[in-house]
Amino acid sequence: MGNCCESMGPQKNTYIRISLPAVCFVWQIAMVLLFGIFIRYNEEADAHWVEHKQQHNLTDIDNDFYFRYPSFQDVHVMIFVGFGFLMTFLKRYSFGGVGFNFLIAAFGLQWALLMQGWFHSLDQDTGKIYIGIENLINADFCVAGCLIAYGALLGKVSPVQLMVVTLFGITLYAVEEYIILNLLHCRDAGGSMVIHCFGGYYGLAISWVLYRPNLHQSKHNEGSVYHSDVFAMIGTLFLWMFWPSFNSAITNHGDGQHRAVINTYIALAASVVTAVAISSMFHSKGKLDMVHIQNATLAGGVAMGTSAEFMISPYGALIVGFFMGIISTFGYVIVTPFLAKSLKLQDTCGVHNLHAVPGMLGGFIAAIVAAFASDSVYSHQGLINTFDLTGEYASRTMSTQGGYQAAGTCVAMAFGLIGGAIVGLILKLPIWGDPADDNCFDDEAYWELPEEEEETIAPVLEYNNHMIQKHQDIAESNFSMEEC
Amino acid sequence: MGNCCESMGPQKNTYIRISLPAVCFVWQIAMVLLFGIFIRYNEEADAHWVEHKQQHNLTDIDNDFYFRYPSFQDVHVMIFVGFGFLMTFLKRYSFGGVGFNFLIAAFGLQWALLMQGWFHSLDQDTGKIYIGIENLINADFCVAGCLIAYGALLGKVSPVQLMVVTLFGITLYAVEEYIILNLLHCRDAGGSMVIHCFGGYYGLAISWVLYRPNLHQSKHNEGSVYHSDVFAMIGTLFLWMFWPSFNSAITNHGDGQHRAVINTYIALAASVVTAVAISSMFHSKGKLDMVHIQNATLAGGVAMGTSAEFMISPYGALIVGFFMGIISTFGYVIVTPFLAKSLKLQDTCGVHNLHAVPGMLGGFIAAIVAAFASDSVYSHQGLINTFDLTGEYASRTMSTQGGYQAAGTCVAMAFGLIGGAIVGLILKLPIWGDPADDNCFDDEAYWELPEEEEETIAPVLEYNNHMIQKHQDIAESNFSMEEC
Amino acid sequence: MGNCCESMGPQKNTYIRISLPAVCFVWQIAMVLLFGIFIRYNEEADAHWVEHKQQHNLTDIDNDFYFRYPSFQDVHVMIFVGFGFLMTFLKRYSFGGVGFNFLIAAFGLQWALLMQGWFHSLDQDTGKIYIGIENLINADFCVAGCLIAYGALLGKVSPVQLMVVTLFGITLYAVEEYIILNLLHCRDAGGSMVIHCFGGYYGLAISWVLYRPNLHQSKHNEGSVYHSDVFAMIGTLFLWMFWPSFNSAITNHGDGQHRAVINTYIALAASVVTAVAISSMFHSKGKLDMVHIQNATLAGGVAMGTSAEFMISPYGALIVGFFMGIISTFGYVIVTPFLAKSLKLQDTCGVHNLHAVPGMLGGFIAAIVAAFASDSVYSHQGLINTFDLTGEYASRTMSTQGGYQAAGTCVAMAFGLIGGAIVGLILKLPIWGDPADDNCFDDEAYWELPEEEEETIAPVLEYNNHMIQKHQDIAESNFSMEEC
Repeated sequence: MGNCCESMGPQKNTYIRISLPAVCFVWQIAMVLLFGIFIRYNEEADAHWVEHKQQHNLTDIDNDFYFRYPSFQDVHVMIFVGFGFLMTFLKRYSFGGVGFNFLIAAFGLQWALLMQGWFHSLDQDTGKIYIGIENLINADFCVAGCLIAYGALLGKVSPVQLMVVTLFGITLYAVEEYIILNLLHCRDAGGSMVIHCFGGYYGLAISWVLYRPNLHQSKHNEGSVYHSDVFAMIGTLFLWMFWPSFNSAITNHGDGQHRAVINTYIALAASVVTAVAISSMFHSKGKLDMVHIQNATLAGGVAMGTSAEFMISPYGALIVGFFMGIISTFGYVIVTPFLAKSLKLQDTCGVHNLHAVPGMLGGFIAAIVAAFASDSVYSHQGLINTFDLTGEYASRTMSTQGGYQAAGTCVAMAFGLIGGAIVGLILKLPIWGDPADDNCFDDEAYWELPEEEEETIAPVLEYNNHMIQKHQDIAESNFSMEEC
Repeated sequence: MGNCCESMGPQKNTYIRISLPAVCFVWQIAMVLLFGIFIRYNEEADAHWVEHKQQHNLTDIDNDFYFRYPSFQDVHVMIFVGFGFLMTFLKRYSFGGVGFNFLIAAFGLQWALLMQGWFHSLDQDTGKIYIGIENLINADFCVAGCLIAYGALLGKVSPVQLMVVTLFGITLYAVEEYIILNLLHCRDAGGSMVIHCFGGYYGLAISWVLYRPNLHQSKHNEGSVYHSDVFAMIGTLFLWMFWPSFNSAITNHGDGQHRAVINTYIALAASVVTAVAISSMFHSKGKLDMVHIQNATLAGGVAMGTSAEFMISPYGALIVGFFMGIISTFGYVIVTPFLAKSLKLQDTCGVHNLHAVPGMLGGFIAAIVAAFASDSVYSHQGLINTFDLTGEYASRTMSTQGGYQAAGTCVAMAFGLIGGAIVGLILKLPIWGDPADDNCFDDEAYWELPEEEEETIAPVLEYNNHMIQKHQDIAESNFSMEEC
Repeated sequence: MGNCCESMGPQKNTYIRISLPAVCFVWQIAMVLLFGIFIRYNEEADAHWVEHKQQHNLTDIDNDFYFRYPSFQDVHVMIFVGFGFLMTFLKRYSFGGVGFNFLIAAFGLQWALLMQGWFHSLDQDTGKIYIGIENLINADFCVAGCLIAYGALLGKVSPVQLMVVTLFGITLYAVEEYIILNLLHCRDAGGSMVIHCFGGYYGLAISWVLYRPNLHQSKHNEGSVYHSDVFAMIGTLFLWMFWPSFNSAITNHGDGQHRAVINTYIALAASVVTAVAISSMFHSKGKLDMVHIQNATLAGGVAMGTSAEFMISPYGALIVGFFMGIISTFGYVIVTPFLAKSLKLQDTCGVHNLHAVPGMLGGFIAAIVAAFASDSVYSHQGLINTFDLTGEYASRTMSTQGGYQAAGTCVAMAFGLIGGAIVGLILKLPIWGDPADDNCFDDEAYWELPEEEEETIAPVLEYNNHMIQKHQDIAESNFSMEEC
């Protein structure tokens, strides 16, 4: 036993009794202080609303809350149950999948409220960030970027490292989002660019820096069991079902939300059918692979993130979903193994195929759709409304807008790759309590586990011992007989 | 091994590597073409809305989206998680239960948008189908009929057959819906008739035609294990909780949706209590059976499908739920085994007890409730509003309406039985890759499975081998000693 | 075998074939009769609405249904999936956890509609209770109190006892709610006092009276297995995600709902981070304990129940969540074992740490927040609106209001403790079919179970028998050889 450990070099230490509580407390206390200094309710959530609405002749239903709350709750489910359960597929890492997802999302959304607040909702006069339901949705979106990155790192990092990934991830997200949405004035309601493309490449870059040459030592745990695959389907389905809410949550009231839902619903349906087709084609007897069903079926939703609010038309959405299901499944079958070998890129959940590539393609598709947008299709007012071509952007042509959309996609990718590489280097410091190569994909490292095996096997072992004892007795009696 | 196969006649072949991708691609491409030709956004989802609402003096909140979207998402969850997880109860068919449900629902809703669009939303001038949120809900409803049918076939058909079942099921549904809702001018908001009664009998008729005399050879897989029953409860509960949304999703704005929710909520509560009572009564020690809890508790929601929007009154809803819980549980205990023996009807999920019979009864109950509807209970305007007695139907008496409602139920049943029988005959062709009688209820046929058993048992086997080797050594040493 | 039973005194009998159906039928029939006498649709759910809205110049969207329905559905999910799955964590009591939760919630909500109706919605002129969506939410809330109590009793009582717990629990709830909300005129939108504090102490008092000195005989079943802990996370997450809806479901339209959502969202996020920190600190290697993650992460939501609608400010909410995560986790590590030993209090789910204490603290926190409420923070109209200081309460000062809030918390606690003690005594009667001490936490008592173990172990046993037989043969042949 000593031998096998020595041969691997110095044994890693997963002791996090000091570092994890320290990080949690320091950061949570920082959040309390910063919230105290900066964050206040916006006018629709403040008790002054009752006077405000009288002055402005509004009714309660005009409160943005009623336009966005149902979508917010759906997005919330995607973040915590969707991403969380999607990552329970590993046979011995379900606690870490759903549990660490919970931790980093809960921490990340607080930091996101601040970071996004400073960039988008800071009142210059009072120096306060005024938050409402839309800020909560955006905080959830921001967290999604980090959870996507977690998918590439699943089972190979410690919770302390994940807190670091989240802190930097949220920060990078807020900056790239500011550049893309405000400086470039792109549209990206469902975040193909700012969420999926950024989050995917961010995770991949970190994973690439943290390459583990001896990860094969954990091979026995890097797979699913029957029921863990069923658990993962809970994640898949809640993501799939609520994706229309994700892409429509912060689009324009009225036709904007309505159209984003229709487009996403249609694109996702096509992804399922083509993902099944490709999955079956690549198996010698046509059997389906759960990995594809759990992931590639969602690719249509990722790719519709930016263009869901555009007049891409129902068949346009169907075509996007059609090809994304194919490309994503193809990625799982061919590209991931190739990247693992040639690029030394260990991507546990295949976020390359589900988020990075479909997100990037979604950004470019939207650039094309935007470039061809016209008054005749959108109506004059509709075009201005959809692309927010007011103020200094009133004179921007649609082909220019398309160019900026494409540039935005590149910005997201660059932020993901460069930011991820830097964060990866930080995570290489030997202070984070990450697991050894033969200890990956195993909840044992960070969770008190119930003693399951024993329970199942106990009666068998007992029976064995009994029978073996019996035969030992016979054998020994033979032996003793001979002696006499 | 060869012997046992030969004795069953020619071995079935579950090779679907060509047929499944072919069907998926051909039909998905057909969808793209037909969507391109026919489907457009309706005015509330089109970017022209911003001009339209100004012209018509509307506000954003008047968009039908805000009246129906929360219900739509709940219905969506019922279709994919509700039906999907309800069918994971079999010990080795959870992948097929939730996975094929996913596939056929995603394909079916596309075809439903077209079929229902041609019948209900086709603009005669432009030849286009204009879709909005209500069309998405209706597409989900339409798919529900096919998923109910899947319940009767669970574990006994191939995914290719399921695609055929869905293609024809959606088609039949659209036609019977047109006859019932448009020609007979029935009300059926929650689809007791058009969804449950039709879907139930459609599945039963197919199952009856596909009767497998040697299905007992798969007996070892036709049951649940502890955790698969817990998974199925996820399906049950999401169906149960969101059924009020199902029955109210397309009812009239305002009191129509409000009342449908109350009635369904109440009926479902009563079903749970009486289903538990009957389940306990039929066990020698009063123990409960998970099959009843998973299914019969939902019967109240099925039966309230048509009358949920009527003034059936809260106690009326309670009485309906009361009897449906009893009838449905009774069906599982007595009727299903009887049908299996006498009618040779193999109904895996018991859709006869959960959908066919409660749906049919719900149709007739609604007929009676409609026949007794009066101005005093509904108010004059309320009666017209609830039963849409306008235009050519303005003079229809309520007893006539009741008669039409009853006729509609018979139409739904007839479409299910006759359509199902025909589709069943088509599915008997030996080209669909369905499993052999001893291969049913087993994901092995169509899914790449993780190797679970081995993992659990491996350490035991290893320990055994070790001990056995040891004793073999002792025994052998005895042996050799004797030899000397 | 006879011996071990005799030593425990008279064996308990879990035969409930007569009592369970009898209770279900009698009470369900009583519900039908009482609904028939008392319950009617309110004007927003009645078909007269179409005339009513014309007379009052309303539009459909003014129907309260559209302000509350999305929150209602989220609350509904918390009651059935949230509480239900949270209680599936025991290795052999998942059926009972989710199944009995389903039964008592479905029965309880009917009784709650009546009890709360008599106290709050009874029309003095007609003698009828007029119900709408808010009544359904309140009925779900009322049921939550009983489900919390079930958490303390999980695995130790029969379903018949649970029906009794529910009948009395709903009754007590309706009375204390009337005292707190109407007589004391407290605010308690999310029910820190009336739901959590009451429900927690109610369950604890019952559990205390039903103390089982020999419960250690069921020790082998009082734990989780790997997958049962993952199931429980479904419950945890749905509770956590939808808690903002819980606390905002019945608050004032507009800013009230908006603010309650923001406060709850923020408090819950902080709870997660500090619960993780404390959980890690108390393990020798810093590993996390699933019990804490499943429960203590929710404490922030419980404690924000009363003050969610107040202007506690975002950082106030963050501070509440911060300390609740700490206190609750600390409770699981230290207090529950202490109470079990010193107070003989057997609290299966630790409701003391999740509901009783955070609920009580939430009540007192709200008292302080209310006492310091001022016109400058709320605006004059906002203060009146938030605390409903109209009519006879128009002259109540805020410090008085704070005093009443604190008094309300004490009332809730007293009702829980005294009511629970009395109900506990009733449940000690030997007629309820509760399990023996060595039969607790085992679904075997009340559920027909699939035969799981056998299936997994069968092949191993077979292999063993085969190998052992072989060596027996060798040993015997040795033996016989010697004989010759």
